[in-house]
Amino acid sequence: MNTIGIAVRLTLFGSSHGPGVGCVLDGIPPGLKVSQEQIQSLVDLRRPSKGIGTARAEEDVVQVQSGIVDGRTSGGPIHLFIQNKDTDSSKYERFRTVPRPGHADYPALIKYGEAHDIRGGGQFSGRMTAPIVAAGAIAMALLETKGVQIAAYTQSIGEVLDTEEHDFQTITTVPRRFSTRAAGPKVAALMEKEILKARSEGDSVGGSVRCLAVGLPIGVGEPFFDSLDGELAKMMFAIPAVKGVEFGAGFRASAMRGSQNNDPFEIRDGKVVTVTNNAGGVLGGLSSGMPLDLRVAFKPTASISKEQRSVDLVKKENTTLVIEGRHDPCIVPRAVVVVEAATALVLADLCVRGGFIGR
Amino acid sequence: MNTIGIAVRLTLFGSSHGPGVGCVLDGIPPGLKVSQEQIQSLVDLRRPSKGIGTARAEEDVVQVQSGIVDGRTSGGPIHLFIQNKDTDSSKYERFRTVPRPGHADYPALIKYGEAHDIRGGGQFSGRMTAPIVAAGAIAMALLETKGVQIAAYTQSIGEVLDTEEHDFQTITTVPRRFSTRAAGPKVAALMEKEILKARSEGDSVGGSVRCLAVGLPIGVGEPFFDSLDGELAKMMFAIPAVKGVEFGAGFRASAMRGSQNNDPFEIRDGKVVTVTNNAGGVLGGLSSGMPLDLRVAFKPTASISKEQRSVDLVKKENTTLVIEGRHDPCIVPRAVVVVEAATALVLADLCVRGGFIGR
Amino acid sequence: MNTIGIAVRLTLFGSSHGPGVGCVLDGIPPGLKVSQEQIQSLVDLRRPSKGIGTARAEEDVVQVQSGIVDGRTSGGPIHLFIQNKDTDSSKYERFRTVPRPGHADYPALIKYGEAHDIRGGGQFSGRMTAPIVAAGAIAMALLETKGVQIAAYTQSIGEVLDTEEHDFQTITTVPRRFSTRAAGPKVAALMEKEILKARSEGDSVGGSVRCLAVGLPIGVGEPFFDSLDGELAKMMFAIPAVKGVEFGAGFRASAMRGSQNNDPFEIRDGKVVTVTNNAGGVLGGLSSGMPLDLRVAFKPTASISKEQRSVDLVKKENTTLVIEGRHDPCIVPRAVVVVEAATALVLADLCVRGGFIGR
Amino acid sequence: MNTIGIAVRLTLFGSSHGPGVGCVLDGIPPGLKVSQEQIQSLVDLRRPSKGIGTARAEEDVVQVQSGIVDGRTSGGPIHLFIQNKDTDSSKYERFRTVPRPGHADYPALIKYGEAHDIRGGGQFSGRMTAPIVAAGAIAMALLETKGVQIAAYTQSIGEVLDTEEHDFQTITTVPRRFSTRAAGPKVAALMEKEILKARSEGDSVGGSVRCLAVGLPIGVGEPFFDSLDGELAKMMFAIPAVKGVEFGAGFRASAMRGSQNNDPFEIRDGKVVTVTNNAGGVLGGLSSGMPLDLRVAFKPTASISKEQRSVDLVKKENTTLVIEGRHDPCIVPRAVVVVEAATALVLADLCVRGGFIGR
Repeated sequence: MNTIGIAVRLTLFGSSHGPGVGCVLDGIPPGLKVSQEQIQSLVDLRRPSKGIGTARAEEDVVQVQSGIVDGRTSGGPIHLFIQNKDTDSSKYERFRTVPRPGHADYPALIKYGEAHDIRGGGQFSGRMTAPIVAAGAIAMALLETKGVQIAAYTQSIGEVLDTEEHDFQTITTVPRRFSTRAAGPKVAALMEKEILKARSEGDSVGGSVRCLAVGLPIGVGEPFFDSLDGELAKMMFAIPAVKGVEFGAGFRASAMRGSQNNDPFEIRDGKVVTVTNNAGGVLGGLSSGMPLDLRVAFKPTASISKEQRSVDLVKKENTTLVIEGRHDPCIVPRAVVVVEAATALVLADLCVRGGFIGR
Repeated sequence: MNTIGIAVRLTLFGSSHGPGVGCVLDGIPPGLKVSQEQIQSLVDLRRPSKGIGTARAEEDVVQVQSGIVDGRTSGGPIHLFIQNKDTDSSKYERFRTVPRPGHADYPALIKYGEAHDIRGGGQFSGRMTAPIVAAGAIAMALLETKGVQIAAYTQSIGEVLDTEEHDFQTITTVPRRFSTRAAGPKVAALMEKEILKARSEGDSVGGSVRCLAVGLPIGVGEPFFDSLDGELAKMMFAIPAVKGVEFGAGFRASAMRGSQNNDPFEIRDGKVVTVTNNAGGVLGGLSSGMPLDLRVAFKPTASISKEQRSVDLVKKENTTLVIEGRHDPCIVPRAVVVVEAATALVLADLCVRGGFIGR
Repeated sequence: MNTIGIAVRLTLFGSSHGPGVGCVLDGIPPGLKVSQEQIQSLVDLRRPSKGIGTARAEEDVVQVQSGIVDGRTSGGPIHLFIQNKDTDSSKYERFRTVPRPGHADYPALIKYGEAHDIRGGGQFSGRMTAPIVAAGAIAMALLETKGVQIAAYTQSIGEVLDTEEHDFQTITTVPRRFSTRAAGPKVAALMEKEILKARSEGDSVGGSVRCLAVGLPIGVGEPFFDSLDGELAKMMFAIPAVKGVEFGAGFRASAMRGSQNNDPFEIRDGKVVTVTNNAGGVLGGLSSGMPLDLRVAFKPTASISKEQRSVDLVKKENTTLVIEGRHDPCIVPRAVVVVEAATALVLADLCVRGGFIGR
Repeated sequence: MNTIGIAVRLTLFGSSHGPGVGCVLDGIPPGLKVSQEQIQSLVDLRRPSKGIGTARAEEDVVQVQSGIVDGRTSGGPIHLFIQNKDTDSSKYERFRTVPRPGHADYPALIKYGEAHDIRGGGQFSGRMTAPIVAAGAIAMALLETKGVQIAAYTQSIGEVLDTEEHDFQTITTVPRRFSTRAAGPKVAALMEKEILKARSEGDSVGGSVRCLAVGLPIGVGEPFFDSLDGELAKMMFAIPAVKGVEFGAGFRASAMRGSQNNDPFEIRDGKVVTVTNNAGGVLGGLSSGMPLDLRVAFKPTASISKEQRSVDLVKKENTTLVIEGRHDPCIVPRAVVVVEAATALVLADLCVRGGFIGR
C-alpha cells in the first residue's frame, strides 16, 4: 500500500489531479535540524528541465505542516504537502475505454473498476515521487549527522552509456549542473541529444541511474528478509517506470568466475577495505563498509505522441491511440533525485532499526 | 529479519550447522490439500546434482510438524523442520580471523561480534533456502487452485546464455531432466561444461534464472509500495548470491524507445492481451494479465578453492586464504527451484491480500 | 508510531498547535459512497458541548484532499485534513520545567528532549482523535455495506453508573440527544450534574464508555495475536486517558464460576445464538456472531485548575502548579464517538483482512 | 496471526495434539547469556500444580534448536520446540457437532470449516502459551541486563481478592511458593479453597493476575499507536481466557476526580517520582519511570464437567453437553508466569525499538 519502512516510515497520499500530493514521515528522531529550504531545494531538482522536460509547470512548493518546529524535528510525525496547480484532466477520460500501452490504466481499471481515478494516472502518477523526494531530504539530513552521503547520476540514456568511473565527490556536484544529470559535460551533451531526438520523433527514451552512498557503517541491514539490498530493491520498484535493480557488478556478475567477482580484502590505511567493489557494498544483505553501489533501469516514458495500437475495452475491438498532452520524453534526469531520496529513506530506516542512529 | 509476507507469512529459523533449519508458514487458508510428498519432491529439486554439485550429502527430509492434518491445511501455522545431518564445523573457526571474500563473514562479525555463529555461514547460510522451497511448495499448491502456475529455468551459466524463447509448458518439465536445469539439451550440455571447467580450475561461476508465472489474475499487487515487482524483488534479494532482478525487458528497456518498449494491446480470442511482453506482466506494480517474467542474477559461489587475498582481522595485516570444504562450483541449478518457491510465496501473499484467493 | 492497521491502515499526523491535524486512510476499497457531510457530522459529535465542555472553539472542518472523488472512494489513499484555528500556545512553555501531573509531559520531555513540541500536548494531544473520528466515519460507511453497525454511549461519569441494559437501536439514537451522550434522560441529568460539580470545584471527573457492534460476521479476527479483542484493545489504548478495556463480563468474569460465565448456545429462529453474552461477542479472539460488547475506562482529565504538587525539573525541587487554560472537566462525552470510530477502524481492517469485505 | 513484535518478534506454531508446540524468537541481540535451565525453569512454573491443576501430565521439555550456541544468543532466530506427549484426542470430535460454550469451537468451525483442527483446541489451545513462556524467559534475560525486572501474582480467584499492597521483592519470590501463585500464605489458602470448591462441584472459577515491572527506563513506548499500554494490552488478549486489561487505577480511575487520580510529582532522593501510581507507570503511552502496574482479568475455564446447554449444529437443535477430560478448574495460577513472559516480550520489543537496549 502507501506506507513503507519500519523505524522510519513513509506514508504517501494524494493524486496527480486532486488538490495535491504529500506524505507523512514518521520516526525521525527529535532535534534534527532541517530547514524548509533544504527540502525545497531537493524537490526543485525533480522539476522538469527546460528544453528536455514536460511543459507541465508545477511550482511544487513544499508545505511543512507538522513535525518540524523552528527548523528542528519534534519527534512527531512530519506532514508535508505539495499543492497541484497546473492540472488538465480533460484528456484522461478516454483512457477508461482505450488504455494507454505501458501504463497502469488497464490493470488499474480491472482492479479498481469505474471508481479508479484515472486523471493524470491518479495514485499511480509519477507525481507521487515529489513527496518521496521531500521526505528523502529529511532522511538525508539525518544520515548526514552520521557522515552518510548519497549521490546519483544518469548513467545511460537510450544507447548513450557513461562507462567512466567517477569520484564520489564529483557525483555530488557535477550532475546538478546538467539538465540530464549526467556526470560530465561530454556525456551530458550526448544524452541531451538522445532525448531531443526521441522527442522530435514523438517518441520517448529510457535510461539508467547509478546511485552511490558512502560513510555507511558496517552491518546495516537485517538478515534474512529485511536485507539492505532487498529493502532498497523494494523501494526502487515503487518508482514508476523502474524495470530492474542491481548492486555492484549485478547482472555482469552472473557471467563471471568467483575468482574475478570476489572482492579481495586488504588493509589500507589501517582499515579493512576490498580491492574491488563488485559486491556493491552489500554482503549477506549487510553493508560491507565499501560504497553502496546500485543501478536502476528505467523504461522509456510510456506516454508518447506517436500513434499506438490499443483496444477499445467497451467495444472489445482493436483500435489506435494518440496521446496528447505534456509529457517528458525521458524521465531519467528527473528520476536521479528520486533514486537518491528513495535510497536515503531506506538507509535511514535501516540505520535507525539497527541502532546505528539513536532515537 | 526472518519474517516476510503480510497475509501469507513466512518465518525462517535454524542455522547451517545446528540441529536443523525450518520455517513457519502462516495464513494459508484451511482445507488446502497438500501432501508431504508434494513438499518433499520440490525440496529434492534443490539438492545438489551428482557431478556438478557439492559433496555435502543432506537428505533434507521435511517434517511437517503442525498445520497440516491428514493431508489438508488446518488454517493454523504450518511448521516445517529439516534436520541437519552432514555437518562439519571444524573448518569455519578460521574465518573469524580471516574473513572469506564475497561472504557475509566480515560484516556479520562486525554486526554480531564474537557471538556470530560462523559455522556453515550460520543464519546467512544458503541452507536457509531449503525451508523456503518447502514453504513454496505449499504456496504453489494454493496458487494452483486458482490456475496460477510457476516455472523457472537456468537462463545463463557464466558466458553460456540461453537466448531462445521457450513455451511455458516446456519450462514446467524440461529443466527437471537436466542437472543444470537448462531448458534444452544443447544448452544444458554447454552449461554443464562451463560448470565443470570452473570446478576443474578450483573456481566457481555465476548465472541467471528466469522465472515465469501464468494464470495470474489481473490487478495482483498493491500500489504504491507493496507492488508486485517490489515484493518479488525484495524476496529475491533474500536468496544468497542474488545481485540483480529485472522484469520483462528489464535493463534492456533502458536502451529502448517508448515506441519499441510499450506493449501494444490487442484483442485475441476475445481477450485483451499485449502483442509483446516487455513489461514482464507488471504495469504500475500490478499484474497485467500477461505472463509474469522475471530474471534473477546470481554471482558465482563465493567459496572457491583457489587461493584468495584476505586480511587477518586480529593482526590487521594482509594474508591469503584457501577455502577447503565441499562447495558448489555453481549454485544456479539449485537456485532454480528456490526462485520458483520464492515467487510462489510472494504471489500467494499478494493474492490472499488482494482477495484473489479466499481465506 | 502513528500508523495502525494492516489491510485498512490509518496514519495520523499533525499536532495540537501547528497548522492542523489529519490522517491518511489507506486500503478502503474503491467505489464506496461516502460524503463529506457523513464525515463532518461524525466529527461534529466530538466537539465540546456547550456548558460541559472546553471553551476552545474549533470548527473542525474536515477537508477531503484525496482518495474520494465525486463522493466515492477511488481505492487510493484518503487524505483528510483539519485546520487548527483557536490555538493559544503561550501557557505551555512553563510545563517544560514543571510537568503537569497525569500528562505525558514528563516522559515526553525525557524521550524527545528540548525538541519536544509541548504546545497543547503536541503529538500527544487529544486533538489527534479528531482525524480518528473522520477516518472512522469512512470505516463505518464501509462496514454498513455489510450490515455492521456500531454504537456507543456514556456508561458512567464519576460515581454515576448506568446499570440498565439498552436496546441497540436506542444507543444509535438516544445518546446523541444528550451532551453527556448518556443513554437516557435521567442518567443524562445525573451525569451532567456530576460533571458540573467537578468543574465548579476546579476539578475533573472520569467515566466509562460502552460500545456495541451488531451484524458482524462470525470469525472476524486472526488467531493468535491479531485477535478481535487484542486489536481493539490496542486501538483503544491509543485514545488519550484510557486506562482499561474489557469485553463482555470483563473483570466481573474473573469473580464468576464457569457455569455462570459460559454463554449457553441455543437455536433461536433457526440461528445459533447464545443465551447470555458474557463473552462480549468474542471467543478465541474471533467474533462469535453475538454483539461485540466492550467497555473502555477513561481517567479524569489530567488538566485541572486546582493547585497540584509537581517538581521543577531544572531546580530539582518540589513546587506547585496551577494549570490555566480551557479544558474539559470530563472528556468522556466527547470520547464516545472516538470509541465508535476507533472500533469501526479495527473492524474494517479485520473484515477486509479476513475477506469478509471484498477489496 | 501468529507473529507479534517489531524489533523483537515472536512467531508461534504447533497445536495442542500435534507433535508439539514452539516458537521462533527473532531480534534478540547477539551475545546474551541464557541457559536452557533458565528457560526450562520458567516453563516449569506454567505446569499444572498437583491438587489444583489438570491431570494432563506434560513434561514440557524445551528444546533449543537454533539461535543459542554455547549458552549465548547468536543474533539469529531462536527456535524453541516442546513436544506434546500426553495427548488424548478421542473426545474432541464430538465438539464439531456440539460446540463447547465459552470455547472458540463455534466461531473456529465457521471460519475454518471442516479442516479446523479441533483436537485439544488446535491452534486456540492454551498450550500455545508454553512457548510464550519459553520465549519470555529469553526476553527477561535481555531486560535484566538493563536492570528491568518483572513479577506477577494471583490477585484474585473468584470472590477471593488480595487487596494488600506488596513489596516488589516479595512478588518476585513469595508467589512461587504457593501453587496458587498468591502473594502470601493466608490468601493462598483461601484461593486454594476457592479452586477446590469449584472443582468439587464440577465447576471452574476465574481470577485476576497483577503484574509489575520495575527498572524500566523513562520513555519506553511509541506514540500514538504503538504505546506501552496498547502493545501490552494486545499481547495480553492473546492469552486464552483474558477478558480485561487495566493499568494502575484502571477502571477505578473512571470513578475518580482528577485531583485524586493525578499522581503528584515529587523529588525523592534526588529523583523525580510520583507520590501515587494511579497511572500504573504509563503516561501518554510512554513509561513514566514508576513501576509498570497492570491487571489482567481471566474468565473461568470454559471446560467444566457440569452439564451445559449447547446446540447440535447438524440437526440445528438444542442439546446438552457434558465435557469429559482433564481440565484445570482454574487456569489463573498457571497464567501468572504467562503474564510475566508476555509482559517481558512486549517490553523487550519496545526497549529494542526505542534504542533503550542496543542491538
